[in-house]
Amino acid sequence: MSAMFELLATDPLSRARLGRLTTARGVIDTPVFMPVGTQASVKALDPRELREMGTQIILGNTYHLSIRPGLDIIRAGGGLHQFMNWPAPILTDSGGFQVFSLAKIRKVTAHGVQFRSHLDGSPLFLGPKEAMEIQRTLGSDIAMVFDECPPHDCSPKEAQGAVTRTLRWAAECREQPRLPGQAVFGIVQGGVNAQLREQCAKALVALDFDGYAVGGVSVGEPEHEMMKAIELSEPFLPADRPRYAMGLGTPAQLVELVARGIDMFDCVLPTRVARNGTAFTRHGTFSVKGGAVKADFNPIDPDCRCFACRHFTRAYLRHLLNVNEILGLRMLSVHNSHFYLDVMAEIRAHIAAGTFPEYRRQFAATYVPSQKIMAGRRAAVSKQLIQTIE
Amino acid sequence: MSAMFELLATDPLSRARLGRLTTARGVIDTPVFMPVGTQASVKALDPRELREMGTQIILGNTYHLSIRPGLDIIRAGGGLHQFMNWPAPILTDSGGFQVFSLAKIRKVTAHGVQFRSHLDGSPLFLGPKEAMEIQRTLGSDIAMVFDECPPHDCSPKEAQGAVTRTLRWAAECREQPRLPGQAVFGIVQGGVNAQLREQCAKALVALDFDGYAVGGVSVGEPEHEMMKAIELSEPFLPADRPRYAMGLGTPAQLVELVARGIDMFDCVLPTRVARNGTAFTRHGTFSVKGGAVKADFNPIDPDCRCFACRHFTRAYLRHLLNVNEILGLRMLSVHNSHFYLDVMAEIRAHIAAGTFPEYRRQFAATYVPSQKIMAGRRAAVSKQLIQTIE
Repeated sequence: MSAMFELLATDPLSRARLGRLTTARGVIDTPVFMPVGTQASVKALDPRELREMGTQIILGNTYHLSIRPGLDIIRAGGGLHQFMNWPAPILTDSGGFQVFSLAKIRKVTAHGVQFRSHLDGSPLFLGPKEAMEIQRTLGSDIAMVFDECPPHDCSPKEAQGAVTRTLRWAAECREQPRLPGQAVFGIVQGGVNAQLREQCAKALVALDFDGYAVGGVSVGEPEHEMMKAIELSEPFLPADRPRYAMGLGTPAQLVELVARGIDMFDCVLPTRVARNGTAFTRHGTFSVKGGAVKADFNPIDPDCRCFACRHFTRAYLRHLLNVNEILGLRMLSVHNSHFYLDVMAEIRAHIAAGTFPEYRRQFAATYVPSQKIMAGRRAAVSKQLIQTIE
Repeated sequence: MSAMFELLATDPLSRARLGRLTTARGVIDTPVFMPVGTQASVKALDPRELREMGTQIILGNTYHLSIRPGLDIIRAGGGLHQFMNWPAPILTDSGGFQVFSLAKIRKVTAHGVQFRSHLDGSPLFLGPKEAMEIQRTLGSDIAMVFDECPPHDCSPKEAQGAVTRTLRWAAECREQPRLPGQAVFGIVQGGVNAQLREQCAKALVALDFDGYAVGGVSVGEPEHEMMKAIELSEPFLPADRPRYAMGLGTPAQLVELVARGIDMFDCVLPTRVARNGTAFTRHGTFSVKGGAVKADFNPIDPDCRCFACRHFTRAYLRHLLNVNEILGLRMLSVHNSHFYLDVMAEIRAHIAAGTFPEYRRQFAATYVPSQKIMAGRRAAVSKQLIQTIE
């Protein structure tokens, strides 16, 4: 096995787990949040800022990176870690999600997907073989299998077809060469169909991956469907491998997903909402652009130890956001990313101390989810999903 | 006197000077470059990055700050230093340049200028009294007098009128209350008219300011006129006070201006061209967006010790710039600002060592000025100057 997962503690009142994942480039404490570096950069942040906020692993996107800068450049640059100067662990996705959401899909075959670049329309092909080869070139510590990620409201027949192809492709990915020490995770599909989720999870486990992801979430579905997709998959995953919920979610959702046995998360929300001037706090989100904070000389969160909260006031950040100074969205990106990592650190401490149920209860009582953010997120994803699968 | 200037060494073959300016918030080694923080932020950079690159003093803009966030907010926030968390020295301009370039000017009177905000058209008035009061509220360590800055191609009559008003306003500024320890600099106007420059400089010196600026440069004039404006003003300024060339210039121009007796500079070029993907080096500028560096894994400048050059390659920065990742323009802003500060540090070392003439010769031989940047700069300034003075 390429990545060793140790289960250190479990919460007796939920399925929450404390763990440690050892990869070629370092140890990752779980539950863990992975900041998203789609284009070889976590938006607005530099590697020093990422390290300072306690980032242990980041995510890179196979689809985007293979288009720009292209694999020749990354290969010549010594791989993704060296190219972007991030020596710690990187997880790369397989491109499956992007092919089915961003690209103009031409044809799904047994061997993969023929599609056109969302950028310039040039013809491309991505399948299990290609996705694994690209991830070898990127040199990620954790690679993901190439899966088919259908829209959340697809027909039962489409859902079944996606699971069938996902399993065939997973088996192919499993057989591809990999870098020394490179772990590979399988991805469970199946929507909210209990039978499909079980079938998919069991078949993947039989293939013996280093970890397992729950896919087919963060595709525009309402929250209860997302939770259901996790609940229908998780029971069939082995306790001694990490579980990763792809593309999720809000802070409150992350706490609930940990309680459902998930160990790893990635999400663009912290940096995306930062660029709109929205900050995450224990009490939910608030707009730092609003007039209410124009003479508020407190930090975003007085208890936060991030670089932004240690150095700047709400009034100053509001000014920067209102006059379009880059430092404003930079500092909100710092704060929001730090907040996600901080919640994870607290979750780990509470699982270790046996107080996770109280933390979970408290979090749910204190944190008011922003309907706007959740609705905006669903709309954004729905817009991406071009349902033209042939 | 509110700021003490010590002349430490002079270059026997030019008018270059090594000095030390002591202000309320710290010592400034001259010749010095002051990064521009127009809207209470040096574009794309945070205070830690500014300190790391050796920034000793930054510039803030009275006109912009009094419009946004407005003086009430800055007053409530404890002044500009505290508002933006920059505890080191700040020089503020008087708003004169902006009133005559950005604003729709309505009327110039004996007491100042009635104009409309470039932002929302609201009516405003700025004169010597108001400019000094605003700079007291901002709390700058060095305040500038309110002057009239006419276009470089104005008529002799307009030039004379501008000098007359500039002198009257300088005398009024001199009499306004100031903060304990706040220095005030006079501004020499007069275009390229030798008589006007001499008249203006002598009259200002008679008023006994803490330092003297040469204004009416960086207003779209060709380089030889800019140099001439300096040469016509400098001989009449006292050796025991710092001289500041406002809004200048390219690296090669800065070296030449030091040789003409100038001690202080500010310029938006380092951060402005960074946002276009252009980097400064010893050999001139080059575009980091160009295809020539797509597989170039050297830093921007192998000899540079800035954060960007210590951590990232040209190929990586090119990729970031081409996919519009903020980290790209951030790192070019770091490099370019560091480059300006570094040139100043070298100049100081060479004046101290008596080798400035050789450094100057070498710099001119090695550095190829970019015609594009110089032309673009003139065009940008000319566009700003709305010549509707009544």
